[in-house]
Parts: sequence; C-alpha cells; structure tokens
Amino acid sequence: DFLEALEEVKPAFGAVIESLESYRLHGMIDYGPRYQHLLSSCRTLVQQVKSSDNTPLVTCLLEGPAGTGKTALAATLAIESGFPFVKVVSAEAMVGYSEQAKCSQIAKVFDDAYKSPLSVIVLDDIERLLEYVAIGPRFSNAVLQTLLVLLKKQPPANRKLFVVGTTSLGLVMQEMELAAAFNVALPVPRLNQAEQKSVLQQLGAFSGPEVDAAVGELIDPEVPIKRLLLLLDLARQGQPEEERAASLTRWVQVLRDLAVA
Amino acid sequence: DFLEALEEVKPAFGAVIESLESYRLHGMIDYGPRYQHLLSSCRTLVQQVKSSDNTPLVTCLLEGPAGTGKTALAATLAIESGFPFVKVVSAEAMVGYSEQAKCSQIAKVFDDAYKSPLSVIVLDDIERLLEYVAIGPRFSNAVLQTLLVLLKKQPPANRKLFVVGTTSLGLVMQEMELAAAFNVALPVPRLNQAEQKSVLQQLGAFSGPEVDAAVGELIDPEVPIKRLLLLLDLARQGQPEEERAASLTRWVQVLRDLAVA
Amino acid sequence: DFLEALEEVKPAFGAVIESLESYRLHGMIDYGPRYQHLLSSCRTLVQQVKSSDNTPLVTCLLEGPAGTGKTALAATLAIESGFPFVKVVSAEAMVGYSEQAKCSQIAKVFDDAYKSPLSVIVLDDIERLLEYVAIGPRFSNAVLQTLLVLLKKQPPANRKLFVVGTTSLGLVMQEMELAAAFNVALPVPRLNQAEQKSVLQQLGAFSGPEVDAAVGELIDPEVPIKRLLLLLDLARQGQPEEERAASLTRWVQVLRDLAVA
Amino acid sequence: DFLEALEEVKPAFGAVIESLESYRLHGMIDYGPRYQHLLSSCRTLVQQVKSSDNTPLVTCLLEGPAGTGKTALAATLAIESGFPFVKVVSAEAMVGYSEQAKCSQIAKVFDDAYKSPLSVIVLDDIERLLEYVAIGPRFSNAVLQTLLVLLKKQPPANRKLFVVGTTSLGLVMQEMELAAAFNVALPVPRLNQAEQKSVLQQLGAFSGPEVDAAVGELIDPEVPIKRLLLLLDLARQGQPEEERAASLTRWVQVLRDLAVA
Amino acid sequence: DFLEALEEVKPAFGAVIESLESYRLHGMIDYGPRYQHLLSSCRTLVQQVKSSDNTPLVTCLLEGPAGTGKTALAATLAIESGFPFVKVVSAEAMVGYSEQAKCSQIAKVFDDAYKSPLSVIVLDDIERLLEYVAIGPRFSNAVLQTLLVLLKKQPPANRKLFVVGTTSLGLVMQEMELAAAFNVALPVPRLNQAEQKSVLQQLGAFSGPEVDAAVGELIDPEVPIKRLLLLLDLARQGQPEEERAASLTRWVQVLRDLAVA
Amino acid sequence: DFLEALEEVKPAFGAVIESLESYRLHGMIDYGPRYQHLLSSCRTLVQQVKSSDNTPLVTCLLEGPAGTGKTALAATLAIESGFPFVKVVSAEAMVGYSEQAKCSQIAKVFDDAYKSPLSVIVLDDIERLLEYVAIGPRFSNAVLQTLLVLLKKQPPANRKLFVVGTTSLGLVMQEMELAAAFNVALPVPRLNQAEQKSVLQQLGAFSGPEVDAAVGELIDPEVPIKRLLLLLDLARQGQPEEERAASLTRWVQVLRDLAVA
Ligand SMILES: Nc1ncnc2c1ncn2[C@@H]1O[C@H](COP(=O)(O)OP(=O)(O)OP(=O)(O)O)[C@@H](O)[C@H]1O
Ligand SMILES: Nc1ncnc2c1ncn2[C@@H]1O[C@H](COP(=O)(O)OP(=O)(O)OP(=O)(O)O)[C@@H](O)[C@H]1O
Ligand SMILES: Nc1ncnc2c1ncn2[C@@H]1O[C@H](COP(=O)(O)OP(=O)(O)OP(=O)(O)O)[C@@H](O)[C@H]1O
Ligand SMILES: Nc1ncnc2c1ncn2[C@@H]1O[C@H](COP(=O)(O)OP(=O)(O)OP(=O)(O)O)[C@@H](O)[C@H]1O
Ligand SMILES: Nc1ncnc2c1ncn2[C@@H]1O[C@H](COP(=O)(O)OP(=O)(O)OP(=O)(O)O)[C@@H](O)[C@H]1O
Ligand SMILES: Nc1ncnc2c1ncn2[C@@H]1O[C@H](COP(=O)(O)OP(=O)(O)OP(=O)(O)O)[C@@H](O)[C@H]1O
Ligand SMILES: [Mg+2]
Ligand SMILES: [Mg+2]
Ligand SMILES: [Mg+2]
Ligand SMILES: [Mg+2]
Ligand SMILES: [Mg+2]
Ligand SMILES: [Mg+2]
Repeated sequence: DFLEALEEVKPAFGAVIESLESYRLHGMIDYGPRYQHLLSSCRTLVQQVKSSDNTPLVTCLLEGPAGTGKTALAATLAIESGFPFVKVVSAEAMVGYSEQAKCSQIAKVFDDAYKSPLSVIVLDDIERLLEYVAIGPRFSNAVLQTLLVLLKKQPPANRKLFVVGTTSLGLVMQEMELAAAFNVALPVPRLNQAEQKSVLQQLGAFSGPEVDAAVGELIDPEVPIKRLLLLLDLARQGQPEEERAASLTRWVQVLRDLAVA
Repeated sequence: DFLEALEEVKPAFGAVIESLESYRLHGMIDYGPRYQHLLSSCRTLVQQVKSSDNTPLVTCLLEGPAGTGKTALAATLAIESGFPFVKVVSAEAMVGYSEQAKCSQIAKVFDDAYKSPLSVIVLDDIERLLEYVAIGPRFSNAVLQTLLVLLKKQPPANRKLFVVGTTSLGLVMQEMELAAAFNVALPVPRLNQAEQKSVLQQLGAFSGPEVDAAVGELIDPEVPIKRLLLLLDLARQGQPEEERAASLTRWVQVLRDLAVA
Repeated sequence: DFLEALEEVKPAFGAVIESLESYRLHGMIDYGPRYQHLLSSCRTLVQQVKSSDNTPLVTCLLEGPAGTGKTALAATLAIESGFPFVKVVSAEAMVGYSEQAKCSQIAKVFDDAYKSPLSVIVLDDIERLLEYVAIGPRFSNAVLQTLLVLLKKQPPANRKLFVVGTTSLGLVMQEMELAAAFNVALPVPRLNQAEQKSVLQQLGAFSGPEVDAAVGELIDPEVPIKRLLLLLDLARQGQPEEERAASLTRWVQVLRDLAVA
Repeated sequence: DFLEALEEVKPAFGAVIESLESYRLHGMIDYGPRYQHLLSSCRTLVQQVKSSDNTPLVTCLLEGPAGTGKTALAATLAIESGFPFVKVVSAEAMVGYSEQAKCSQIAKVFDDAYKSPLSVIVLDDIERLLEYVAIGPRFSNAVLQTLLVLLKKQPPANRKLFVVGTTSLGLVMQEMELAAAFNVALPVPRLNQAEQKSVLQQLGAFSGPEVDAAVGELIDPEVPIKRLLLLLDLARQGQPEEERAASLTRWVQVLRDLAVA
Repeated sequence: DFLEALEEVKPAFGAVIESLESYRLHGMIDYGPRYQHLLSSCRTLVQQVKSSDNTPLVTCLLEGPAGTGKTALAATLAIESGFPFVKVVSAEAMVGYSEQAKCSQIAKVFDDAYKSPLSVIVLDDIERLLEYVAIGPRFSNAVLQTLLVLLKKQPPANRKLFVVGTTSLGLVMQEMELAAAFNVALPVPRLNQAEQKSVLQQLGAFSGPEVDAAVGELIDPEVPIKRLLLLLDLARQGQPEEERAASLTRWVQVLRDLAVA
Repeated sequence: DFLEALEEVKPAFGAVIESLESYRLHGMIDYGPRYQHLLSSCRTLVQQVKSSDNTPLVTCLLEGPAGTGKTALAATLAIESGFPFVKVVSAEAMVGYSEQAKCSQIAKVFDDAYKSPLSVIVLDDIERLLEYVAIGPRFSNAVLQTLLVLLKKQPPANRKLFVVGTTSLGLVMQEMELAAAFNVALPVPRLNQAEQKSVLQQLGAFSGPEVDAAVGELIDPEVPIKRLLLLLDLARQGQPEEERAASLTRWVQVLRDLAVA
C-alpha cells in the first residue's frame, strides 16, 4: 500500500516558479548586512551542488522564530537556482494524510528529484511535517525517520540535489538529531530596530521623521518581518492604495488594540 | 477514505444566520467600556479582511473563562460581517466522529470557504474540537495539526477569509502553539461588579436600590455573564413573565443553595 | 458503524419507574436537616426546567463518597419529576461495549430525550461510564468528550431536559472539567452520629437505650448509609423478620469480624 | 462479536465439586485460632446470602501473600455452600484470550449465575485476570471495569449470589478501587512458628522432639502454608510413602540448597 | 485464530537430544565446587518430579550474567532427565511472530507436555521471549501473563512436568513477579580466578606455569565461561588443531585489542 | 504475512562489491596509528571466522560520532573479506517499510547468509534501523528484538558468519543491551590535529606551510573525517580540478560562514 499512496508527480517548471512566488508575496526586502550575509552563505551552498562533483548532496536548515522569512528565503533560493526540478514539501498539501501516506509522498519527491540532474527540495515547516506538538511531546516518528534517512542518502550517479529545510524549533530539531542530519544550519533573525526602520523606509510607510517614532512604539525591540508587514497593513486600513504613508496615530492605535493580546 | 468522510455542505445563508442567533439567545448586553473596546478591535479585523487585498486571511482567537460570552461574540461578528459564507465548526455536530472524520470535516469547511469571495469560519470551543483533557494530558493531535496548518494556509487568489476561534484554555493553546497560529488573541473577561450592576439594571432585575445589595451577595467579585443570567433566571422562578424584578430574598436563597457547590 | 451500534429505545413509562424503584430498595429515610436541604435544592432545579422557558437545560452533579445514597437520590428525583421521558445511563447496561458503542449509546439517549417535551437523564456512576482507574490514570476520553459536549448542548426548541449525574470522585471530575460542565454540583454526605442514630431509630434496629451504644461501637464517626444498612442486615442474620431489634452483642461481633478488613 | 465469544456453559454440579477439590489437594489443615476465625467470618457471609432477602449479593475478597491458601479457602467455601451454581473464574482457562473475550467470558459467568437461585462465583487470582504487572504498571482496564461493574450489579429478583475473590496484591486492588468494590476484605496470613509446628505435627513430619528444631531452621519466621508443604515433600524425597517422618538432616540440606535462591 | 496459530508439534526424541547438544558445543567443564553444588541442587529437583506424586510440577529459574552457562546447564538437565518429552522454548524459533502467536506457541508446548507422563520444558532467555528492553521499559505483557499462568498451572492427573528457565535479568524477573512464580531460583556465577585456572588447565590452554600469568592478564577478576572460551579461541587463531597450548604473547595481544572495547 | 514480506534476494557478487565501493567514495586515508590499530583488530576478527571451526559466528560493533568513517570501514572489511555472501542492511533500502516488514527483511538477510559457507553482514547505522529518536525515547522494539536474537543465533553446521554493525549512539546501544550482544565493540574516533594535518597533507590541500594554519583555524580540536573532507570541498569551490591546493583565505571564509551554524 506504500506504493499505492504515491501519486504521479509531473513538475511543470513554469508553474512551479509561479507557485513559489506565492511564498514571498511581499517581495524580498534587503533589510541590511545580516540579510546579505545570510543570502550569500546560502548561495555558496547552492553553487557547490552545481559546480562540484564531489558533493552531489548539500543540505541546509534555516532556523528562526515564527515569521522571520524562512519560507520566503527558501523559495527565493529555489527560484534563483534555475535547477530543472524544484519542489516544496509542505504540510498544507498533506492535510488528512496518514503517517504512511506522508512518508511515501516525501519519499516520492526525493525519488522524482533523483531523476533530474539538478534538483532543489524545500522541506517547509518541518515541525508541521512531523506533526510536532510540545505537549507530550508528540510527533510522527515515521516521518522523522524518513527525513533522517533521505537527508543522508546519496543521489544516484550524476544526480545532484540541494535540500533546504525551514523550522522555528531549532532546539527540538537538535534533540531529534534532525539539525545534525543537515550539512549546515543557518539562523534567520527577527528584525532589530535599525532593520525595522530600513524596511519601513523602503516601503514609504511613514512620512520621513515619523519612522523613528513608529519604531519606538513597538514594545519588543525585535520583530519578525511578517508581523511588521501585517501591522503596517492594518495601520493603512481604508487608505487609498496610492497613498503609501500611514498615520502615526492610527499606527499607535492598532498597536494598542492588538498588544493586548 | 478521507474524501468519503466529506459530506456535501450547502450553506443556506438565511438559515445560517438564524442558527447563529441561537448562540446569543439572551442577546448582547453592552456591559461597559471593556466590552465596547473588545467589540471594536474585532470589527477592525473583520474590516481588514473585507477592505484590503494584502491580507486575505485574518485570524483571531477569543480567550476567556467559561461563560464569559465568547461564543456569543463570535456569532455576533459572523452575523454582522454580512459575508456570504459563514460556518460554525463545533464539536456538537461531530459527536462520535473519528479523529480522521473530524479532520476531514474541518478541512471541508475551509475548502468550502475558499469557494466564496468572503467567508467567516467560527472554530467554537477549540478544546472540545481537540478532545482535550488535562489528565494526561490528552487530545487529538490529528485535529490540532489540521488546525495549525489550515490557520496559516493562504486562501486562493481573490478569496478572503476571517477565522475566529474561542477557547477557555488560553495557556494550553499557547503550549500547543495554537495561540501563536492566530494573528491576534483577544481576552474576554468575567464581569466586575460595575459590569454586573450594569447588566442587572438593564434587565430590570431588581427594584432600583436593591441592585447594589444583590451584587454584594455574590461571593466572587468577578462573575461570567452566562452564570449571572442563570442565577437571575433561578431567582425569578415561578414569577409571572411580565414581572421583571426578582425578590432579593429569593436571590439570596438561590445563591446559598448553589454556592454550596 | 456509529449508527449501527444504536438500538431502538422505546421508554415504556410505567416500566421505567418500576425499574427506577430498584435503585432505592431500602426506601428513602429522612435522616435530618442535611438531607432535607439537599432534596430541596434538587427540587428547585427540576422545577426550574419545568416552569421557565429561559432554561431548557439544567444539569446537576451529585458528588459523595461510596454508598452515601447518590443513585437512590437521583432515582428519586427522576420518579418525582413526572417527566414523560426518564432514562438511566449506567455502565451495567454496557458491559463489554466498545468505547464507540458507549458513546453512541449515550448520544442516542440524549437524542431520544430531545424528542420528548420534558426529560430526565440520570448519568449514574460517571467514573464507571468513563472506565476510570486511578492507576495511570486511565479512562475513555471518547466517553468523556461525549459527555462534555452533550452536557452543554442546548435541546431543540420547545424541548426541556434535566440531567443529574452521580460520582464518588469529585476531584477527578474537576480535573476533567466535567464538574464545571454541570450547572450545579451538590455534595452528598456520609451520616454523622446523630444521623446514624436517627436512621437506626426509624428502623427500630435496637431496643431504645441500646441505640447510643450501637452507634458508639462504629470505629469511624461518619458512615455511608448503604454500609449502615448492610451492617444492620448482618446483625439481624437468622432473626425472624417480624423481630426488628437486633441484639447488641451480635452487632458488636459483626463489627469485629468485618472491621478486620 | 461480544456474544460470539461466549461459549455455552452447563455447570454439571458433581463435576464442579470434583474439580474444586483439585484446588485443595493437600486438604485443609486447621492450623489454629487465626484460621478458625477466618473460616467463621467467611461462613457468616455465605449464610447471609442464603438466609436473608435483603442482601441478595454479598462479595468478599481474600487478600494474602503468595501461597497462604487463599484459593484453597475460596474453593472450600464454594464446596461447603451447597449452592446449585458454583463457578471458578481463573486465568488458566483463558490463556491467549483477548481482553474482550475475557470480559465476555466473565460477564457470561455472572449471567449464568443470575439464572440460578443461589450461586457462588470464585474470582481466582484477580491480578492474573487483570493481566497485572507492576512495571508500568500495566493491566487490562477492560477486565477491571467489567469486574467493578459486575461486583456491584444487583442480581435479578429472587436470585442470590456470593462472590469470593483472591489476590496477593491487596494494595494494588485498593488503588484500583477493586478492594472497595467488595463488601468485605479479609486477610489470609502466613503461618507463624506456632502454626508451622501445628501443621508439621498434624502431618507427622518429624519424630516428636525434632519438630521444634525443624521449625527453627527456617530463615523467615513466617512461611506460606504452600511453601511449607513443598519443603516437606522435598525432604521426604525417595522415602517410602508409609514412612511419614522426614530426617532432620535431609530437611536442613533441602533448606540450604534452596535458601540460596 | 489463537488455535490456528498452533502448528503440529511431534517431538522426535532422538532428534531433540541431538539439537540439545548444540547448546553445549564446548562441553560441560567441571570448574569446581560451585558448579558441583549447582548441578546437584538441580538434579534434586528433577528427581523430585520423577519420584514423588505430591509434586507433579516443579519449576526452577537459572539466573546469572551473560555467558555464564545457563543455557548449557538447562540443556544438560533436559538431556540427563531421560524424560520422554523435552522441548526448548526459545526466541530464535519465533523471530517475527506476533505477541499472540508467541503466546499460543508457548501454550502449545505446555499442552503437548501435558500429554506425556514426564516432561521437561526449557524456557531459554526469558527476557527475549518477553521482548524486554530496559528503555521504557517495554516487554510483551501478553507473553509475561502467559508464562505467569502456565508456570503455576497444575498438569492433569498422572502428568509430571519440570520447567527450567534461564535469564540474565534476575531483578527484572523479580519486579515482574516471574522469579516468584518459579518454585526455586538458583544463581549461576561468573568464574573466579581459581575457576578460570581450572578451566584453562583442563583445556591444556597454556604450558603449565604460564596459566597463572594468563589468568592474571584479565582485567576483571570474574569472567563468564563463554567469554573465556572465546578469548582462548582467538589466542589460538591460526594454530594447528593438534597444538593445544596458546602462546602467552598472543593471549596478551588479543586481550589488549579487545579490552579497548 | 511475515513470509510474504520477504523478497527473493540473489546477491550478485560483482555488483555487490561495486555498490560497497559507494560507501567510501573518498577512499580510505591512513590517518595514523589509531587507524592502523583499529583496522588490524577488525582484520583479526574476520580472520577468526574464516580460519577456526570453533567460532562460526563473530560479531563486532563500530561505535563513533557522526562522520568518523564507520560505514566506510565496515564496507572495507566486507570488500577485503573475499567472502562469497556480502550484504549491507541499511535503513535507506527500507524507507516506508512497516516494523514487521523491516524485521522480516533483516531475518531474510540472515537466512540467506546461512546458505553460504562464509558471509558478511553489515548492519549500517543501527539507530536508523531501530527508528530511534531520543525524545521519548522511541524506537522499534520489534527490530531491536530481531537483532538481539539474530546476533546470538548460531549459524547452521558448516556455515560461518561475520557481522559488523555501525552506530553513533554507543550509550543507547548499551542501554538496549545491543552493545553486549556483539562479541566486540570498537571505538572509531574523530581526527585529532595531527591526524587532520596528515589527511590534508595526503590530499595536497594546502601549499606546505599553510597546513598548520588551516588546522589551527578549526574551532574544535577534534573533527570527523567526513566533515573535514566537506570543508575542503567547499574551500576548493570553483577551482579547476587539477589545482589541488585551496587558498587559505577561502578556507577561513568557509569556516566563518558555516561556523555560524
Ligand atoms: N528579506 C526578507 N526575507 C524574508 N521575507 C521577506 C523579506 N522581505 C520581505 N519578506 C516578506 O516577509 C514574509 C515572510 O514570511 P514567511 O512566511 O517567509 O516567514 P516564515 O519565517 O516562513 O514564517 P513561519 O514561521 O510562519 O513559517 C513574506 O511575505 C515575504 O514576502
Ligand atoms: N455582551 C455580551 N457578550 C457575550 N454574551 C452576552 C453578552 N450579553 C449577553 N450575553 C449572553 O450571554 C451568554 C454568553 O454565553 P456564551 O455561550 O457565549 O459564553 P461562552 O464564553 O461561549 O461559554 P463557554 O465557555 O461555556 O463556551 C449568551 O447567552 C449571550 O446571549
Ligand atoms: N435518605 C436516603 N438517601 C439515599 N439513600 C437512602 C436514603 N435512605 C435510605 N437509602 C437507601 O440507601 C441506599 C443508598 O445506596 P446507593 O446505591 O444509592 O448509594 P450510592 O451513593 O449510589 O453508592 P455507590 O457509591 O456505591 O454508587 C439505597 O438502598 C437506598 O434505598
Ligand atoms: N488451612 C489451610 N488453608 C489453606 N490451604 C491449606 C490449608 N491447609 C492445607 N492447605 C493446602 O495448602 C495449599 C494452599 O495453596 P493455595 O494454592 O490455595 O494458595 P494460594 O494462596 O492460593 O497461592 P497463590 O498465592 O499462589 O495463588 C493447598 O494445597 C491446600 O490444600
Ligand atoms: N560447566 C559449564 N557450565 C556451563 N557451560 C559450560 C560449562 N563448561 C563449558 N561450558 C560451555 O560454555 C558455554 C556456555 O554458554 P551458554 O550459552 O550456555 O551461556 P549462557 O549463560 O546461556 O549465555 P547467554 O547469557 O548469552 O544466554 C557453552 O558453550 C558450554 O558448552
Ligand atoms: N581512514 C578512513 N576511515 C574512514 N573513512 C575514510 C577514511 N579515509 C577517508 N574516508 C572517507 O571518509 C568518509 C567517511 O564517511 P562515512 O559515511 O563512512 O562516515 P560515518 O561514520 O559512517 O558517518 P555517519 O555517522 O554519518 O554514518 C567516506 O567518504 C570515506 O571514503
Ligand atoms: Mg514558513
Ligand atoms: Mg462557548
Ligand atoms: Mg451509585
Ligand atoms: Mg491462589
Ligand atoms: Mg543462554
Ligand atoms: Mg555511516
């Protein structure tokens, strides 16, 4: 029945890139040196797969708190790679699957990748693939073991594979020895105040001098980029789209309303 | 078999609103500033879904002790929204379902919502959906993972969805990372003495000056609105319906009888 | 298969009352003020269901140590109510059922109740329905969740339901949030020495002055009414039925023999 | 399938007594006052079932360390009772049964008993029926719940039932609330030195004066009667059957050999 | 299906002894008084089964660290007994069986034994039959309960049975009450230095005076007999078979190489 | 169904060696005395199987941190042995198998080995075969028990078998008594600085004097050989293959980039 669970997968390249774009709907904003360094390390790894025959398999884990842009970054690497086979493995596409069906689906993606000379696999939100919950804790050991094995399995001759995973539970991944199963683990940070300012400025979110005040209103000194973008959207509520700058008053009110949470 | 468990759902709009009304049979009493602020924050979120294209999915969790009016508030938001698709996901409708059937039922509701341009889904009493019990603790991880995934899944293009959940176990939701999976979490409070007085007065429960005495008789300074309304009903037992004011003596006796509990 | 497990239930009213009588074979002895107060609180709740349209569902939990007369009291309320639908849900009738079959049987009883304008459901010995055992602890979460949902589900329009549960594990019910799912929880006590004396006198168990001595012989100052009645039966062993007073010597010997236990 | 697991049971009275005899192959030796008192308490309970209509169900638990004669005593009560229905429920007859099959077998025995005016059921070695093991601990909750329910279920009108259980795990039975589900629990002791001497003398195990020495050689001051009888058998090894007295030297050697254990 | 799992077993006596011999391929070396005493205690027990009618079932557990010769001793007792039915129950023959199949296989062996007037059953490596692992700990409770019941079940009239078990986890057996289910438990020791010397001398392993040096080289003062024989085999590697004495140098090198472990 | 899971295995000798080569794609570099001693101990064991009739089964466990070369060493022993039957048991080939299928696959490999006069079985990455994870901890007890039994089962007459296992979880193997089930356990170390230097020099990784600097840049004094080879590959990225020496600057940069991890 393992094989029965497999469905035919025919990655249509153009379509794939399009759907990858949906993971970075707000674009990729260069928020400063930390982002540049992170991006460059990732690119080195992708390049290694492409250019060396000694390292047909390179695997990299992006670890960081919720909303820090891990999935968007992984999608970006996949798009940039130009590799003919690109696939995102995500829990969204497997809601309601049994453990076994998940395992076989994941194995199928790797098998498909082995048929292409150059491939990228994105393992998005690994804790969700594992059905992890801290109470217990519980998770699917079947999926975990499948990942542990596939992450270390050499592709067949003349096949090259780059795997990038994302997780917001770095410590859990370590306890499970999943972090160690990747060649490299890179941290993805929350934005500090300079970075927040940089993002807000690039988006023209506030009329010049108000940006510092806007950043100062946030309780936590560090904010995930996804949350910052949501807060801005709420502050702009009802504004005509061509008007980019939000009012500081409305910004403050939105923060008050929701900071209650 | 996952798909087999799905039943055809055809939300008949009129009928839905009617049945939503059954969640607030005692109406919505404006008990003061805390209620007004809560209601306004919620309305901002609903409005955001409707008016902005950047935020096609907004999710909000109402947390509060038993009987504080969470379900009634969620139903109110759904009714007020005027959205064409409105659906309550509740354990009552799934008594005796298997975990898998519950998951597929929930997934089906989201799938149906994705077919409507504007939708509201109420996830009522999430701990019951999860079959949570503190001893163990035990719960359905399958349902939990389904919710975790669906709460973060973007609707398809041109589809907008507002999800409001209710729970009386805020801390448990946090441990499960369910609270964090919502964009916003808003607390729903028990009534303080001023609010109790306001409610009793609006209902004409006691002849004027007796209200203060009535409120003073309650042991706990904070009371859930649902409980306050039940106590009043018991105190009015046997009275003709047109006579609204209850006797203070009878009120005190009811409190004595049941406070033993 | 959920529905298949349901059997047709046709409550024949006369028969039901007869079988309810079997839960109080030793009759109901008025052992004093604590009993009178308990009975009157219960009657208020039954009356509330009957007379008010605002409270179509009232639920009450009788908590007390083993043998204190909880089941007999619940049966008494059901008989007195005069409601057309009366049903006892008890583990005795479900020996060997699967968890699912138990759940569906319980749900069926509630469904049947919803068809009658006025109903009483007795949930007897809830810990047995839950298959609870302190080692582990273990219990049927499926049955628990079924009860938690059904205890809060409003009956359909124009249907009224009184639910009375019994348990000797009050604290466990609280941990499971089952106690809180009832509107009211009332304690059922063991008999103190005055109450023991009252019971023994009403039964003519000892010739007048010996009653105090008989009560004094019991090790524990508090005794469940069921145990007191068994001890008396043993002390009367072999006596002709018309002779009601037991010998004090025999009473003491029975206590010695069994107090070893 | 619950019912399918039931086999037709037709207790052939003569045969039953014969097989009950096999539980006391070494006979019943009156080892002194403790035994007499225990036996007399048990007889009172059996008599109560027979002679009073108020107590159609009496249940008694024999608790004591391994080999103290619990099963032999239970069998003795069953034989003496002269009741037309007598049945031993024992794990031996259910090796390899599933939990469900065990439950249905036990329920069947009670159902059969309810068809006879007077019945005795022996629940032998309850920890084995429960498949109890201290590591974990683990046991069959299904069997436990079945016993808890059946031990409190009143027989139908005009039916009387005496249930006697045996266990060497009194504390475990208490934790499981099984001990409390019996009306009475009686302890069965190991033999003290006076009792050991009494047994050895009645069996003519040693020539007169050597008995004290023989008893003195035992390490533990308290010995289960079953073990004492085995040691005597080993000490008599190779002796002609008509020669009853064992040699003290051989007795000491046997104790040395096995006391190593 | 329990019965379906049973296969026809026809113990061919000659064949059985032959295969029992395979459990003591290195023969039985008399390593001194501890061995003699152990063997003699075992023989007493076998003799008891054979010669007395009072004790149709005698059971004995051999406990000792890995490689101390428990299985070889048990096989020796079975061979020496001359009983017509002899059977080894071992996990080796049940690799891949389900718990239920193991239970039924074990029960089948006992049933077969009950058909022979005199039988020996060897329960080899009980922890493996139980699938025991200390992490958890985990084990098959079904197999455990089967053993607990069968070890105490009396054979039918005129049938006699000797059961010998082996285990290296004495404490675990006690916690499981398996040790207590045997009539006797005998410890099997590692060899002390005098015993090691005796074994090496009997095998002519070293030229006379070198034996003491050879024994002195072993790190641990106590060595299991099986390990001692393996080390000797390694030290003799490459030697012609007729040359029995190993070189001390080579002995030391082997110890160094493997003592690293 | 156990047998149904078995697939026909026909080891084609030439092919096997070829695929064994894939486990040591970077060759075997003699990094110094620790490696030489390790290799020689292993060879003694293989030789023992081949040359002595007393030891038809020899089993050896290679324990060491991730990437220390355990699998490459095991493959090397298998290749060198020249035995006609050589088989690697690895989780890679069993992704998605049920526990039972894994057990039967493993048993099948041993059964096949028993048909060849001389065999080698490699149990690679035993923790993966066991599906071990430290959280819980969890693992397949069925696979564990299968290994525990097969590792001690004597091959049939005239059959000889060498089993070599690899693991990076030595302590876990001890707790599971798997380590003790092997005759010998040998540690495989990380490279110390002298050994690192030796490896880098043999590979001509840096122009002479730079080697010491390169080694000095590594944070940890001990490095697994596999990691050292990956770092070198990354440092050589983009270089023409004929140019063997990497630039020290690039080496340092690679270390900085990834040491973040
Ligand atoms: N420099 C950037 N890096 C990453 N994301 C960015 C950047 N600039 C803008 N974004 C936007 O920020 C959002 C990041 O959200 P994303 O879902 O990738 O975060 P995440 O860390 O995967 O969140 P989660 O923990 O919920 O999975 C995307 O909408 C993306 O378009
Ligand atoms: N301002 C108000 N907010 C909420 N409910 C109100 C308000 N005024 C009156 N009510 C009435 O109070 C009751 C609140 O009950 P509701 O079931 O919504 O509480 P809940 O918090 O969902 O309880 P539970 O914890 O049991 O799920 C409803 O009958 C509703 O009509
Ligand atoms: N005032 C009384 N209240 C309750 N029971 C009474 C009273 N007077 C006499 N009885 C008798 O006492 C007995 C009480 O037993 P009952 O089974 O109701 O106790 P219980 O608390 O349900 O016990 P358990 O904990 O075992 O379920 C009944 O036989 C009943 O007839
Ligand atoms: N007075 C006595 N009471 C009980 N048993 C006696 C007595 N005198 C002799 N015996 C003999 O002692 C033996 C008691 O063994 P029995 O199996 O009843 O003990 P047990 O307590 O049930 O043991 P276990 O704990 O193993 O179940 C029987 O063979 C019985 O014939
Ligand atoms: N006196 C002896 N007692 C036992 N075994 C002996 C003796 N002399 C030689 N041997 C040999 O020693 C070996 C003992 O190994 P055996 O397998 O019986 O040990 P074990 O304790 O069962 O080991 P394990 O704990 O692995 O099951 C056998 O090969 C046996 O032939
Ligand atoms: N002396 C050596 N010993 C072992 N491997 C060597 C040696 N010299 C070079 N190598 C190479 O080093 C690599 C060792 O990797 P290998 O997969 O065997 O390590 P491992 O310990 O099995 O890792 P893992 O813990 O991930 O299973 C192989 O590519 C092998 O060719
Ligand atoms: Mg993400
Ligand atoms: Mg609610
Ligand atoms: Mg009761
Ligand atoms: Mg017994
Ligand atoms: Mg052995
Ligand atoms: Mg390896």
